[in-house]
Amino acid sequence: MQIIFSEDHRLHFPQGEIFGGEFVTPFERPSRMEYILRELKARKFTDIKPPSALDMGPVRKIHDADYLTFLETGWAEWTAAGYRGEMLAAGVPNRSLRQKCPKSIDGKVGYYTHSVETCITAGTWGAAKASAAVAQTAQKLVSGGAPHAFALCRPPGHHAHDDLFGGYCFLNNAAIAAEGFRASGARKVAILDVDVHHGNGTQDIFYQRNDVLFISLHGAPEYTYPYFLGYADEKGEGPGEGFNINYPIPPGGAYDVWGAALEDACTKIAAYKPDVLIVSLGVDTFKLDPISPLKLEHEDFTTYGGRIARLKLPTLIVMECGYAVEAIGINTVNVLEGFLNA
Amino acid sequence: MQIIFSEDHRLHFPQGEIFGGEFVTPFERPSRMEYILRELKARKFTDIKPPSALDMGPVRKIHDADYLTFLETGWAEWTAAGYRGEMLAAGVPNRSLRQKCPKSIDGKVGYYTHSVETCITAGTWGAAKASAAVAQTAQKLVSGGAPHAFALCRPPGHHAHDDLFGGYCFLNNAAIAAEGFRASGARKVAILDVDVHHGNGTQDIFYQRNDVLFISLHGAPEYTYPYFLGYADEKGEGPGEGFNINYPIPPGGAYDVWGAALEDACTKIAAYKPDVLIVSLGVDTFKLDPISPLKLEHEDFTTYGGRIARLKLPTLIVMECGYAVEAIGINTVNVLEGFLNA
Repeated sequence: MQIIFSEDHRLHFPQGEIFGGEFVTPFERPSRMEYILRELKARKFTDIKPPSALDMGPVRKIHDADYLTFLETGWAEWTAAGYRGEMLAAGVPNRSLRQKCPKSIDGKVGYYTHSVETCITAGTWGAAKASAAVAQTAQKLVSGGAPHAFALCRPPGHHAHDDLFGGYCFLNNAAIAAEGFRASGARKVAILDVDVHHGNGTQDIFYQRNDVLFISLHGAPEYTYPYFLGYADEKGEGPGEGFNINYPIPPGGAYDVWGAALEDACTKIAAYKPDVLIVSLGVDTFKLDPISPLKLEHEDFTTYGGRIARLKLPTLIVMECGYAVEAIGINTVNVLEGFLNA
Repeated sequence: MQIIFSEDHRLHFPQGEIFGGEFVTPFERPSRMEYILRELKARKFTDIKPPSALDMGPVRKIHDADYLTFLETGWAEWTAAGYRGEMLAAGVPNRSLRQKCPKSIDGKVGYYTHSVETCITAGTWGAAKASAAVAQTAQKLVSGGAPHAFALCRPPGHHAHDDLFGGYCFLNNAAIAAEGFRASGARKVAILDVDVHHGNGTQDIFYQRNDVLFISLHGAPEYTYPYFLGYADEKGEGPGEGFNINYPIPPGGAYDVWGAALEDACTKIAAYKPDVLIVSLGVDTFKLDPISPLKLEHEDFTTYGGRIARLKLPTLIVMECGYAVEAIGINTVNVLEGFLNA
């Protein structure tokens, strides 16, 4: 399996994340990649290449132009305003407040976020572009005929909306890849999101489209981040109605429940007959992940990698989350091996 | 002038506030009250009494029942969940996310806030109730025939919506007082908000009502917190159309601009012919306030206190913000003296 990876992910390394009312070292940190790379090498996945230059075309189709400008220039505005910490929001236009972007940077950062734990730093834009380039380069391999590829993205992408960052995500890598597949001739794309957190950004981006089927298995939003999307009754709108499917899993769910949901999801993907499948791969469903409510075992990752392979679709696997412990490497590579050995 | 004040404000003393991407000691801190009390005593305002017990009736008319339960029980849920910091939000249902309250406390705190800088602590609910009782007791003095009264409230209230806390505010003291005036027989109430930050909560609470005229002078929201309400085109809705008036003042505005806006506001209040006036008094328009864009001088506070008095209305003055420096006492008492000496 060809793997695309960029060292530029390290440009994004916030020192703080708000968790439980404190600043903690971010769960989403550069060492996540080291654990995965180590395990890839240990198990002879050696075909790892850097990405090609990013084509901004699909990025601009997915994301709002002003949001992209904010990501690119926000840090300079923030430091020019004299703020000493990393860039994060305070006031946000929740509920009855008005959706109108202010001119000051401290207002803008609230306008463009849905999750205040996530900081923007000097290197965030560079890392986010590199991560999107990783997804795009891997997408082009599959569009060019490769049966599969693995985009080892960081920062992750699935919580990024067209104009909202948060949940450690800035550009929606899977969505950008889906747009790339469409531009490369795929008529129908399916995205299967197996991260423990609902892929709210991806859902929202494609919510009114029927050319991209979005299916997500995740911790039930009543109890699990991102809290405000991911319910089973979110089925798409307008032309997209019926093309958004959520499987919220109650806290404590293990593979008996999760695997049954996956089986149902695979049936629906097969019925959709997509030209290509994108897997948003978060391995934070693992039982020992520090911020996960679900209880998958190491071997479950191998099992579900195999199940996905049996869909027999051209498949792009895009890295999402899973935290910085040795298990992230083991579980990620278990999925890849399960996929290849099916 | 009779003054109502509760020592219980000290129950609310968060150790941290997010500002510029860092935790700083909150600008809204207990010592604000000490500066005001010291200046009141120095200038012979000695009629200071504690509040009567809070009648929750008007509170329940202003605030959502589930929001009140959250304020009352949230801290216990937060500590039971094992969080070690003070309670503040991370994920928030901004823009395209869904307005549905989660069951876990970390989700709830995001659902019920519009400003993530503001922490909830063990004593917040007790202090918020005491502050509302201060406003309510002072309102009852005026309803009972006193020509004026000063509710020395802390925490402040004008940023609190029916179901959103933030901007250091939890219960909307001015709105609760307005509801109390209505219940006591006032047909029409005017609220004049002179805090440097727009009274977004008060505006939103009365936005569809014509029995409460809301007028706010404040830093323009393009540049100034709360950023997402306070524009001049927000004029009320339905029966409330025309009964909401905003005067956004560009950064750097001094009394020539601010005072002209006040003059216009006073004309509109007089035309409304309210039975009673509530002044949401923030003195953070002062030129040296650490988080204010406006440039009022000490003597301007005396001047505008006099202008408000010349409306010749029964008047309840409710303390909002202004930060913990000696000037907060000077400017607050300047308003009161200006009012009394008009």
